[in-house]
Amino acid sequence: MPNTSYKVVERRCQYRRLLQQVAQENRPNIFSHEIARHLHISPDTVRQDMRVLKYHGSPNAGYQVAELLEHLQRYLHVTAKNRVAIVGLGNLGKALLRYYKNKESFFSLEAAFELDESVVGRMILGTPCYHTSEITKIVEEKNITVGIIAVPATASQKVVDALVMGGVRGILMFTDMLVKVPEHVFVEYVDMTTLLETTIFFSRLS
Amino acid sequence: MPNTSYKVVERRCQYRRLLQQVAQENRPNIFSHEIARHLHISPDTVRQDMRVLKYHGSPNAGYQVAELLEHLQRYLHVTAKNRVAIVGLGNLGKALLRYYKNKESFFSLEAAFELDESVVGRMILGTPCYHTSEITKIVEEKNITVGIIAVPATASQKVVDALVMGGVRGILMFTDMLVKVPEHVFVEYVDMTTLLETTIFFSRLS
Repeated sequence: MPNTSYKVVERRCQYRRLLQQVAQENRPNIFSHEIARHLHISPDTVRQDMRVLKYHGSPNAGYQVAELLEHLQRYLHVTAKNRVAIVGLGNLGKALLRYYKNKESFFSLEAAFELDESVVGRMILGTPCYHTSEITKIVEEKNITVGIIAVPATASQKVVDALVMGGVRGILMFTDMLVKVPEHVFVEYVDMTTLLETTIFFSRLS
Repeated sequence: MPNTSYKVVERRCQYRRLLQQVAQENRPNIFSHEIARHLHISPDTVRQDMRVLKYHGSPNAGYQVAELLEHLQRYLHVTAKNRVAIVGLGNLGKALLRYYKNKESFFSLEAAFELDESVVGRMILGTPCYHTSEITKIVEEKNITVGIIAVPATASQKVVDALVMGGVRGILMFTDMLVKVPEHVFVEYVDMTTLLETTIFFSRLS
């Protein structure tokens, strides 16, 4: 994964997210330096990214939130539905399921997988829950391409293997475990330790 | 927050985290391109960062995991104890408390805050739980400098204000809400929507 392409896409997703929140506050416009501060990047980076998107703000009014949002949506094709599964329904998995359930505009949560028999076979927040042993079969049947992992670290490689075997090409890991995947599979690690460490580091500088 | 300084620190925390995991696999060394792939950055960035840390790998053996870890630890002073509080003990908060409880080497979880009277006054996983109305008082008493927010979006600004009033200078937000803080306070937003969007985006390219 080349550095730039990943970082550029990541920033565009972050811009979109930030603008959605700003739009909810009914603010018509936002300045590059405001965007920069929220995302811990430089205003130059923001302006450069916008130029690439062929979007130009005004020095006085900044960027038009609604217009810029449209630009970003189009780029990210977030309108397309992407079929997602979540594996593991412990506290974290349940929290993630609830969180992502409210974001289904750009994807749909097609399945949840769990070992606990008490939830298997039930609908959890509108998502059918299957036994972990069925991952490959269900992922294939439902044509799921993205998996969210919220299982104990020790179980994650097995779960990832099952997802990949079923056809998953993107994995979002909420587990502290490096997993091995084929070259064509993209893995995003959510490193909660790093997030807290950076917060601590900068809280000391401030 | 200047782009570079933030990004450099973030990467050093990520290197440290990755190397800890590699060390657990009893691997003595790792190559820059392996590090690069895991963190979605370029091998050049990794090598450049290591040069700045005055750490040089060998073309044949890559980097010595144990040695490099020491370098990074020293830089990040992660040995210093930092006093942290977590606000909100719903599914996400409980998961975060359990997760961070096992990472207490470089910080200590001094307090948890929750509205639910059934947990207030109890020890949750070894951490005392107080009512949310006591945030400012307890944070001040215990000299807590970092807060982890896992409350509903609508409650987050009030909670952040209480933490800042008590002396918190670093905030890790697991809530989808932009909050206003004084200049001296560092806020890290964990944008779970962006994480899933980037994963989806690259799963389509792959």
